[in-house]
Formats: sequence, structure tokens, C-alpha cells
Amino acid sequence: MCKRIAIIGLGLIGGSMAMALKGFEDYEIVGVDRDPATLEFARTHGVADYLSTDAGQAVSTADVVYLCLHPRGIVDFLSTYRACFRPGTLVTDVCGIKTAIVDAAAVLPDEVDFIGSHPMAGKETSGIFHADGALFRGAHYIITPRPQSCPEHVDLLHRIADHIGCRDVVNTTTAKHDAIIAYTSQVMHIMAVAVCDDPDLFDCKGFEGGSFRDCTRVAALDVPLWTELFSMNAPALCKVIRNLEDNLRAYREVIASGDTAALAEKLAWSADRKRHMNLE
Amino acid sequence: MCKRIAIIGLGLIGGSMAMALKGFEDYEIVGVDRDPATLEFARTHGVADYLSTDAGQAVSTADVVYLCLHPRGIVDFLSTYRACFRPGTLVTDVCGIKTAIVDAAAVLPDEVDFIGSHPMAGKETSGIFHADGALFRGAHYIITPRPQSCPEHVDLLHRIADHIGCRDVVNTTTAKHDAIIAYTSQVMHIMAVAVCDDPDLFDCKGFEGGSFRDCTRVAALDVPLWTELFSMNAPALCKVIRNLEDNLRAYREVIASGDTAALAEKLAWSADRKRHMNLE
Repeated sequence: MCKRIAIIGLGLIGGSMAMALKGFEDYEIVGVDRDPATLEFARTHGVADYLSTDAGQAVSTADVVYLCLHPRGIVDFLSTYRACFRPGTLVTDVCGIKTAIVDAAAVLPDEVDFIGSHPMAGKETSGIFHADGALFRGAHYIITPRPQSCPEHVDLLHRIADHIGCRDVVNTTTAKHDAIIAYTSQVMHIMAVAVCDDPDLFDCKGFEGGSFRDCTRVAALDVPLWTELFSMNAPALCKVIRNLEDNLRAYREVIASGDTAALAEKLAWSADRKRHMNLE
Repeated sequence: MCKRIAIIGLGLIGGSMAMALKGFEDYEIVGVDRDPATLEFARTHGVADYLSTDAGQAVSTADVVYLCLHPRGIVDFLSTYRACFRPGTLVTDVCGIKTAIVDAAAVLPDEVDFIGSHPMAGKETSGIFHADGALFRGAHYIITPRPQSCPEHVDLLHRIADHIGCRDVVNTTTAKHDAIIAYTSQVMHIMAVAVCDDPDLFDCKGFEGGSFRDCTRVAALDVPLWTELFSMNAPALCKVIRNLEDNLRAYREVIASGDTAALAEKLAWSADRKRHMNLE
């Protein structure tokens, strides 16, 4: 008999996850959503093996549950449906913050294994209409297992990450995840919107190069989603924003001073850090 | 008899320009550099129709001269070789700042027509070894003609921009160019290096997504070049950096306040500006 993965929420990430999971071992994929247009799109595009509007029923017959809702939606879902999960089920999510989610999962019965996931992929669009089964290719897949997490489930997440095309699986704690993600993801989005707040934005048509397009690409963000992500990770994010303000001010001061030797030395230091980082 | 375009300086931009200009109307391309390794690479890769180490001779036999040196190098070149240019020659450049360059061109005789150019393309690498004839495809080509500039030369620059694949030609003043470029290009580079100054940089391996890679891509910059570009446009750049510091602080304060409705409203405002901008 087939095993089942239930995807709760067929938005950009949930829809992409359903498509990417197609053909994973002997699992059937059940997509769950309440929005008629989303379900119609999922049906006509074959996004999942089955579709349902009944989350409780889908959860109670699943071996793996992927919560692909916004952060507050996940918190509410765990609370509402906590009695529906079967013992032994692996429950995971795709959310960009982890502490608030894993804390919320404490409402689950002990026999239900919650392991936080964060596949580091996205787009500056939302909804199933932009879903893409190749979205996770080359992305890091971050997991935050708990001490009591079942090793077989950790191993299962490794196989899933491999199947959907992720480059690696990074194992970390919820606190470390949220502190670093404030830096590598959240503040990049804050910068993009802050750049668009400049009064000269609409005068700059015809003067944009690749660096401007790259930096502001993510500014047209999903406002309800990012409001939750930012506000549910506020202390870590505010610390990183303040660091960035300080680092920008330091550059402004050395440029304003007219000391070009000091500016060159400072630029060389930063550029060397980037080269040393060698992310690619 | 063929007309001649002399490219002074076969670095990343000069080398790419020579390659991109290949086959332009009935012009021969003469590449000028002093570095033996650069010349050897240019020779074996057919970067130009002719190569020379004699800038004075190349300038005195050219109909069009492209100055593809660093900003201070252009200023010095104009001063050193001002007597070598023929009357009626179009002299232009590829520099990312325009006021300092066009001011320096005042040393040229009146019959020599200097029109500043800035093809908005680049890479986070330097030198002819990274030159690419397709570098300018889709880029804006900005020009800053002077009141006395010859209309035929402006028209010639339009045809050149079209030949090398630029999407359009933007006609502006040196002051407006430098003010806007501080925003659309220079501060993007300052942000990239400032982000790399964060103490957590080396802890973030495994946690980077597309937005982090995009934003920091330009951080490994050419230090001598950008030291000149930043310091020769310091007042405009410092103003934009300060705006960005203010806009980041405003985001930090609303996030720290816990007022999620205000945060959502602020994000919606910025995201709408980005959508309205619709740069692509």
C-alpha cells in the first residue's frame, strides 16, 4: 500500500513542493487547499496525485505532513488539528522562521514527530500560478530536528531534499537558524524595500544596471507573509539591521572624509571577505 | 579609406568594447594598452583589428577615441595627450562618473568633441581576460553631450550603442548622471560591501538564498577603480547612503515596535513602489 504525503496549502511553495515531490519513492501526494481557483489550477495542471479540501481527513491518513501555510497559519493549524495526526507521523513545514513554529508544535501529541524544515528557495511572486517543480534545485534544505526526533524521519527528509533537487541538507537549531536567516534572507528583503523608499526611485529609469535590478528584485514581496516573518523574528532582525546601518555609516564617514587611502583599505577588507566567503 | 576607432585601455570594459565594436560600419578598431600580458591576450583572441602601445600615435590617427581607463587615468590621459587629438575627432569614455571627466575634458582644443558615455554594464571581475563582446547587451547607454557637441557625433554614439547591443540611449547632464548613479549603482556596491562587514558573514554558509547571492555579488569589487568612483562622487553618494540609513532605521523602528499593522502598511507602500517602477 502506498504511503502518503499531505501538502497543506498549495501556494507558491506548497504547489512547488507537490510538483517536486512527484515520483518520490512509493509516496502518493495529496494536496490540500480551500481556495477554488487554486484547486482548479492544481487539478488541471496535475500538481498532486489527489486533491482535497478536508485537512483533518488528509492529515489523519498521511505518513508525512508538509505545512505550507504562512507562519501564523501554521501555528493555528497545529492547534486546530493537533488531535487528527496519527502517531508516528512526520510533520514538517517550509517556513522561513523556525523558533515560533517549533514552539507551536509543542501542542502535538508526543508520538507525532515534528521536525522544522526550511528549503531556501522562493520567488518574488506568490500563489500556485507561479509554482515550479524546479524551484528547489540547488537550494539549501535546512532542518531543525529536536532531541527526540526519530532518526528515520531525519533520513527521510534527506531523501526528500535530494529528490526535490536541493544541493545539501543543513542541520541546525531553531535559534541559530533564526539568527542567521535574519542576516542572509530577511535583511536582504528589508534592504530591497528600503532602497525603493528613496525619493529618487522614479527618476532612475534608464539608469539601472544589474546591481540595482538584483538588489531590488525581492522588493515586490508578499506583504502578509513577510509582515509575519519579520515580526516573528524581530529581535534577531533588528540586531542585523542595526549592524548594517552602522556598517553603511562607517563607509559614509570614510568617503566624506576624503581619505582615499583609508577608503581603499576598507574596500579591500570587505572585498577580501567576500572572496574568502566564496559562496558559489 | 577606413575610419578608425581607438580604444585606450584594454581592461574588462575596453576589451569588451573592442570586441563588441567588431564590424561596426566601416571602422577599424585599434586597441591600445601598455601591459604585455593584455596585449598578448588581445592578439591571440583577435580582440581588435590592430594593437598598439603608442597612445599618441593611435589618438592622432583616430576618428573616434574611447577612453577606457580608470577615472584618474582618463583625467591624466586627457591632460597628457591633449595636443595629439585631431580636429573633428569624437572623444568619449566609459566611466561610471561624468562630472569630473567632462570637466577634465576642458583641456582639449575646441575642435575636439568630447561627449561623455556610460554604458551601464560591468562585472565583478576586471581585466581583458574577462572581456566579453556581449557585455553591453540589454544595457542602458548613457551620454552627456555638451551644448557645443556635434549632432553627427551624438548620432554616431546612438549607432554604436545599437551595434554593441544596448537597449537604449539615455541623454542626460553630468550632474544628473552622477546624482542618480550614486543611487542606482554606487550605493548598491556600498551595500554589498557593508553586508560583507557583518561579523556573522562566515557563519552563514549553508544559509544563503538567491537574495543574499544577488546582493553580495558585486562585493568582490575592483578596489582601485571603486575607490576613485566613490571618492570622485562623494557628496552625491554620501547623501544616498544617508537616505538608505534613514530608511533602514525606519524599518527597524516599526519592526521593534511590534505594531504589525504599521509594518504591513509600510511594506505595502514600498512593494507598490517597486511594482510601479516595473523595471524589467
